[in-house]
Amino acid sequence: MGKDRTAITPTREEDFPEWYQQVVRAADMAENSETRGCMVIKPWGFALWENIQSQLDTRFKDTGHQNAYFPLLIPLSYLEKEAEHAEGFATECAVVTHHRLETEKDEESGKTRMVPTGKLTEPYVIRPTSETIIGAAFSRWVESYRDLPLLINQWANVMRWEMRTRLFLRTAEFLWQEGHTAHETQEEAEEETRLIHGLYEEFLRDHLAIPVVAGEKTEAERFPGAVNTYTVEAMVQDKKAIQAGTSHYLGQNFARAQEITFTGRNGEIEYVHTTSWGVSTRLIGTLIMAHADDDGLVLPPRIAPQQVVIVPVTPKEDTRDAIIESCEALAETLRREQSYAGSPIRVHVDKRDLGGGVKKWEWVKKGVPIRLEIGPRDLEGRKVCLQRRDQAPNEKEFVDREEFIRNAPQILSEIQQLLLDRLTVFRDENITSCSSLEDFNAHWESDNPGWLLTPWAGSTEEEEALSKEHRITIRCLPNNQQDDTEAPCFLTGGSTRTRALWGRAY
Amino acid sequence: MGKDRTAITPTREEDFPEWYQQVVRAADMAENSETRGCMVIKPWGFALWENIQSQLDTRFKDTGHQNAYFPLLIPLSYLEKEAEHAEGFATECAVVTHHRLETEKDEESGKTRMVPTGKLTEPYVIRPTSETIIGAAFSRWVESYRDLPLLINQWANVMRWEMRTRLFLRTAEFLWQEGHTAHETQEEAEEETRLIHGLYEEFLRDHLAIPVVAGEKTEAERFPGAVNTYTVEAMVQDKKAIQAGTSHYLGQNFARAQEITFTGRNGEIEYVHTTSWGVSTRLIGTLIMAHADDDGLVLPPRIAPQQVVIVPVTPKEDTRDAIIESCEALAETLRREQSYAGSPIRVHVDKRDLGGGVKKWEWVKKGVPIRLEIGPRDLEGRKVCLQRRDQAPNEKEFVDREEFIRNAPQILSEIQQLLLDRLTVFRDENITSCSSLEDFNAHWESDNPGWLLTPWAGSTEEEEALSKEHRITIRCLPNNQQDDTEAPCFLTGGSTRTRALWGRAY
Repeated sequence: MGKDRTAITPTREEDFPEWYQQVVRAADMAENSETRGCMVIKPWGFALWENIQSQLDTRFKDTGHQNAYFPLLIPLSYLEKEAEHAEGFATECAVVTHHRLETEKDEESGKTRMVPTGKLTEPYVIRPTSETIIGAAFSRWVESYRDLPLLINQWANVMRWEMRTRLFLRTAEFLWQEGHTAHETQEEAEEETRLIHGLYEEFLRDHLAIPVVAGEKTEAERFPGAVNTYTVEAMVQDKKAIQAGTSHYLGQNFARAQEITFTGRNGEIEYVHTTSWGVSTRLIGTLIMAHADDDGLVLPPRIAPQQVVIVPVTPKEDTRDAIIESCEALAETLRREQSYAGSPIRVHVDKRDLGGGVKKWEWVKKGVPIRLEIGPRDLEGRKVCLQRRDQAPNEKEFVDREEFIRNAPQILSEIQQLLLDRLTVFRDENITSCSSLEDFNAHWESDNPGWLLTPWAGSTEEEEALSKEHRITIRCLPNNQQDDTEAPCFLTGGSTRTRALWGRAY
Repeated sequence: MGKDRTAITPTREEDFPEWYQQVVRAADMAENSETRGCMVIKPWGFALWENIQSQLDTRFKDTGHQNAYFPLLIPLSYLEKEAEHAEGFATECAVVTHHRLETEKDEESGKTRMVPTGKLTEPYVIRPTSETIIGAAFSRWVESYRDLPLLINQWANVMRWEMRTRLFLRTAEFLWQEGHTAHETQEEAEEETRLIHGLYEEFLRDHLAIPVVAGEKTEAERFPGAVNTYTVEAMVQDKKAIQAGTSHYLGQNFARAQEITFTGRNGEIEYVHTTSWGVSTRLIGTLIMAHADDDGLVLPPRIAPQQVVIVPVTPKEDTRDAIIESCEALAETLRREQSYAGSPIRVHVDKRDLGGGVKKWEWVKKGVPIRLEIGPRDLEGRKVCLQRRDQAPNEKEFVDREEFIRNAPQILSEIQQLLLDRLTVFRDENITSCSSLEDFNAHWESDNPGWLLTPWAGSTEEEEALSKEHRITIRCLPNNQQDDTEAPCFLTGGSTRTRALWGRAY
């Protein structure tokens, strides 16, 4: 690979959406399948999901949540109970109507084929989300205030029949976790919603090295059926926004629709207050668009399936076995004696019978944080050739083997921090304050506009009109605004402390 | 609870199937849902599944398998490709035919309701198993012998529209793992099938404390489309058999149906040899029927969500805080300083404001291996009151706190072994050798007949006739027979080394 060539064609600059597809392909993470809009998550992509899953799961359990599992299929009558919710998902539901197949002979061709039979009296919907089916269980489980809070999480597949799909970011079927909790009071339920909102913000920052903007959604952008939706919004390299995780305070809406009641401390029957919250395999798409470069995937060490890959360089037969043995010994030492972020370092030795260049570029494209090569001379000198994914692909450094073992956690930690810092600078450079409608309108004319932060006192109708005009949305009303003094709304001129963050989104 | 009463009514003796339902309910593991034949797995049941999952997953990864994820929905045309396979699953497939809902006004009542719309040109089947959809991916992934073996596993939900269901043992939707592998040669694929077969046998024995009989299925009992099926069969307390895990050598059947070809070492295009194998949430049902008693669930320590539960006994306000603190300190010490089977001991302190008797019986019914009580006098004397689930519920022993900490792993290990030994004796007592048709026929007249081991040289038709007559099946042709000398078949008189194991099954 020459100096000016990149491993991924096209580059981000040339064609960002196509670059994204090529990064996914080059890292061998996922592919489209024969099932409309559904992807196959390949081992490297799935290993990433397993790390996200186990690291998040620990945090959920540490905050008192328990996992459970609820049916995939929701009776149609359940979905209908909360009207706004049903309407929100009606256009994208996969519906099961039959429960058998029968062989039929085609009269014209004479061929046999299978056709659905055994029509169901009530159709089922494949869960697009599980508020209704989990609510039905909650209504059985909760009797008294002593049964509250009920803190449940489910790891599951869900299905939304999306028309335009993109691997990881928007697929008909996706994997996610969905938390569902029930509480005695509004205050407790809102506290839970904010707890998880904060947990998502931290998880993205500390594990995925993605600095989000956290805030509330406006009414127009709320989850169907929610009283309040909190979101964490990531800015990716084309300056678009990705909604990376949402937490909803559902008030008593679902409780009323599903009769989730309890006997309160005063002996009266009350409705519970519920919340729901989720993140999905969309996080993987976000991660790619946030960190990958023109040579492929770049993985934050904390989440990488392999943190160190060791490639034996074996030009001659007579030193081959010794080099491989030495690589495996190094891997074993790293796994046993060192740890990073509370886990043994994840090390892989690539012993495949392939050229060194082929292997090197494969691991570059897969985004492994640290690559080590060990050849005959390194073996003799007890050195390793160290290459870091956060540096140019041809940069290398020969370091003492013992020194590397000592410093490995430190290097991983440095890379993790560097990715976060780089993206934080990028995000902050691309959020502009704006106080006039003229500037606002002009901003969205440019090719890759960043986000705008504006004083905002407009109505939902005014928000929707602006959104439509510029193909943008209010991503959120940020929680922590550096400047929250009274200011005139850029549109209406009304005085407000509220700030709205506008951007184009995936 | 009086001396003669049991926590579960009815007892195993009185009504085994109903006893089973009551154990599941008393341990709060699962319940039926509004979705026909589908269960809700509650936190205690799901925590058990998480342990099964993580412990099995480690074994799969240690033997070179990688996890991936494939679509939930299978195009009908894919299922049809392997005829025998399609026929085997046709009567129990949930079929998706529409992808939207529309609000419709009922002419008579004037009410609105939602109805399916957006008819699909090709229906999809919710995966009953994934050979066909994974085979489609394999046909894209495999080009050369260098791409083999391909060793993939998926953790997923699957759906089989069963008519009669029973929590965990037979449900329309269930959770499982399905391994799918492709190999260059028949020999390698058969080796893989047997490797997993052995892994399942070991897992049931060493983790679930269930001694199985491992063997081959006869042709009549094979997986639809398989050349050979291996099974591990568990005997539960009513002496029925549960097929706990199967591994299939699929030959080139699926490879031919789906064009999974590769360029071999000699440059010629060949079909791969595939395998598939799986265990499911059925393991939980097996575990319950194997070990639970008339006071509820009994959990093998290795798989128990909590291995030790500490109940503070706080009759007086003035010692309450000190006792709770002492319980928490003990829990922390156990977690930090001791481990069992390679993991920190799982300890829970039950601080709920409930009577001691209520709590005690709850943990008995949930099957926790070790219960500890600490009251004011124990605190003073640095003692704990130790109760073991493998002993009678009212047996107790006061032991030094430090001694308990030292011995905890040993006690857990003893309980694990005891459960296995007890069930091994039971199984062996209830497998009888049988060499005459008269004895064979008489055997199945009794109320809870055990299994029969017979020399067997009959045909599939003869097997099916006997099966139908006595409502039994050949569970397997066991791998390791103590006696495999030539003997006359009990039915045909033909000389054979083959032994068949017959039993009634769930």
